[in-house]
Parts: sequence; structure tokens; C-alpha cells
Amino acid sequence: MNQPTTARGRFITLEGAEGVGKSTQIQALQAFLESRGVPLLVTREPGGTPLAERIRELLLSRDHPPMHPDTELLLMFAARAEHLRTRILPALEAGTWVLCDRFTDATYAYQGGGRGLDPARIAVLEDWVQGPVRPDLTLLLDVDVRTGLARARGRGEADRFEQEAMDFFERVREAYLARARAEPSRYRIIDAGQSLEAVTRDLQAALVSLLQANGVTP
Amino acid sequence: MNQPTTARGRFITLEGAEGVGKSTQIQALQAFLESRGVPLLVTREPGGTPLAERIRELLLSRDHPPMHPDTELLLMFAARAEHLRTRILPALEAGTWVLCDRFTDATYAYQGGGRGLDPARIAVLEDWVQGPVRPDLTLLLDVDVRTGLARARGRGEADRFEQEAMDFFERVREAYLARARAEPSRYRIIDAGQSLEAVTRDLQAALVSLLQANGVTP
Repeated sequence: MNQPTTARGRFITLEGAEGVGKSTQIQALQAFLESRGVPLLVTREPGGTPLAERIRELLLSRDHPPMHPDTELLLMFAARAEHLRTRILPALEAGTWVLCDRFTDATYAYQGGGRGLDPARIAVLEDWVQGPVRPDLTLLLDVDVRTGLARARGRGEADRFEQEAMDFFERVREAYLARARAEPSRYRIIDAGQSLEAVTRDLQAALVSLLQANGVTP
Repeated sequence: MNQPTTARGRFITLEGAEGVGKSTQIQALQAFLESRGVPLLVTREPGGTPLAERIRELLLSRDHPPMHPDTELLLMFAARAEHLRTRILPALEAGTWVLCDRFTDATYAYQGGGRGLDPARIAVLEDWVQGPVRPDLTLLLDVDVRTGLARARGRGEADRFEQEAMDFFERVREAYLARARAEPSRYRIIDAGQSLEAVTRDLQAALVSLLQANGVTP
């Protein structure tokens, strides 16, 4: 006798640098998907499990000297391994969709683009941890760095001490955009310089074909 | 003008399963090497730096559900990357010898042999973190598992609930011995079933050729 099989959930990631409005938009995306009856797990990286959140604390803590970039990368992927194995994959296998605030693209953007780590070394750990698992759809919120930083900091002008931050986030943005251009079938680039409402509308539009392909009325 | 160059320090690791007497013998080794005028850093894994000790706490903590074996392995190597980059390599480059209580051989023995993780997956992370760095000499304290566990637990007999632990440590021991047999030039196997004094004497004897090769009177 054939058992009805539950369709595997879809894995959607939301990416972008500082000040692009990810926190606001992820709530709007959640409300939209749930209103369409999509069973949904909303989660974030680094973090997403109790242990991964403790690793996140280590990554963000200022209680110890700055860690070596290799250490940071291994901790990132340790948190990711735990998150993927214990939450993301079980949810997808049960037919639940997963909406994740940042994933491995952020590692390529921040540690690769921002800090200058060799992307080939990141790829070794990506393959080691994820095997063939990649997001089905990655929504990249993109805005020019000056606007993003001004929003993130709640004021209009970067002073001269912020130039280093500007350069860093410029490299992060370029790394994101380069990945999006290299893999257009997975990425949708959303102009995050628009009004919140317009960004929300564009994000919803970017989901239409994935919803339709999975039998959900968008 | 030629600068006098400081000879690179030697990297010695002490390995072995539970109850082989590592803690006692590492102190005896330290006293012996220091009495010969060898500049020495004594350290341990996992740990050895403030951040690596915090990672060690995560590895040993029971505050969260058991972690996925991949997560454990990545955390091990994150602690190792930090320890290697910030303490071991700088010491070796300054001409200090390093005596380390466990290193990557323990990962192959415990996570590989004991838990059954694929050694090829461990090797990917070893190469990623260490590049070509390996210990110059590895001293393996070896004793039969029943004796080791009895010593570690301070009594003579394993009850039936301990059979699983026996099997685990049997696999750990076999993995250590297999590595020692595969790389005889790096390993010295010391019979840890002897008296403490005899073990200390054998460890010192195992250091003679390394000391002589580096111009130290043993």
C-alpha cells in the first residue's frame, strides 16, 4: 500500500548587511506565508538552538581577546551544524517550510568579503557541514552602504572614524551581490532603499513562483 | 649581517585513554625537561586559551541536550585553531618547546574510534586547521582498558552497566594503537601498566633522541 508522502518543506533565507530592514521584513514575510497556510519555522543564524545560541554568545562576547578568524569560522559552522541537524532538516523533512534570518551566504559576505578570508576555505566547511543542502530561495535585501549604516545607527552622517566600517560593509555588500549574480536562479535581489511597504510587496512578489510551484495560492 | 636565528621549539604531545596516569606523568615530564634547561610551555586540549577553555565548557556542559557529533567535532577544532594560532605556534616560533596534554590524535581516538566518526572527515578538519603542523613526538600511555577504567574510578570491578564504557574505551585504545603503528617515527608507546616510577623512566628514555638531536644533554 502506498503511504501518502509529505512534500518536503522549502528552505528560504533572508540576507543583507546592516540597516537593510531584515528584522521588520522577516515578520512581514512570516505573516504573509502563514496567511497562505504554509507551515512555517522562523529561525536565525548564528543561533536557532540552545547550544547554537551559546556559541553565538561566544562569537559576540567581548570577554576574551579577539579570536583568530579561523576560530570564528569554525564556531560559525559548529552553530550551523547543530542548527541544521537538529532544527532545519527535521522541519523540512516534516513538510514545514523554514525561513531563516541569515545562513551561509552571510559567512561568505562577512567573513569572506568583509574580513578577506579565502572563499575556498569557507567552501570546504560549507560542504563538510551541509553536504548538498542549500537554500531553495535566498532573498537579498540590498541598499547602498551609507543609507544602510545611517539607518542602523539612527542618524544621517558617517564621521571619519566610520570610514573603516563603510569600507567593510562595502565589501560585504559586494560579496553578497557577486553571489547573487553568480546564482540567479536561487537569489532575488530586493531594493531595500524603498519604503517598507514597497520592500514588503517586492518580497511577497519574489515568493510567488515558489508558492505556485508548491501548490500554494500566493 | 646575519641575525642569529632561534631554533624552533619542539612540539610534544602526551596521549592516552582514561586512567593511564597522564596528569601525574605530565608533571614529571615538565620537571625533567625544565631540569635540562628546555624552555617549556605546558598546555592542554581542549582548552589552553581563555576562549578555548570556554569552548571546552560547552563541550563538557550538561546544560543543553547532547550535541550532534559534527557539532562536537567543529567545536573541538575551533578550540584547537585558537590554541594553535595564539599559543602553540607563537611559542614554537620563539624557540619554546610545547608539551600538550592531548591533541588531534585524541580526536581520532575518541570521536573516530570511540564514537565511530569517519576518520576521513576528521582529516579534512585537521588539514583545514593545522595545515602541515603535526607533533614532533607523541608519547602514548597505553594500558589495558579494565585496568585503566578501574584506576580512573578508584575501584577494581566494572559492573554490567559499565560494559558499554568498556567497549567504548576499547575502541579508543585500538584507534590510538593503530595510529601509533601507522606512524612509528612520531609515536612512542609507553606501557602504562607499570609502576609510576617505571612509566616516568620510560617517558624520559623516549625523549632522549629528541633532546640529543636538539643539542640538549638528556
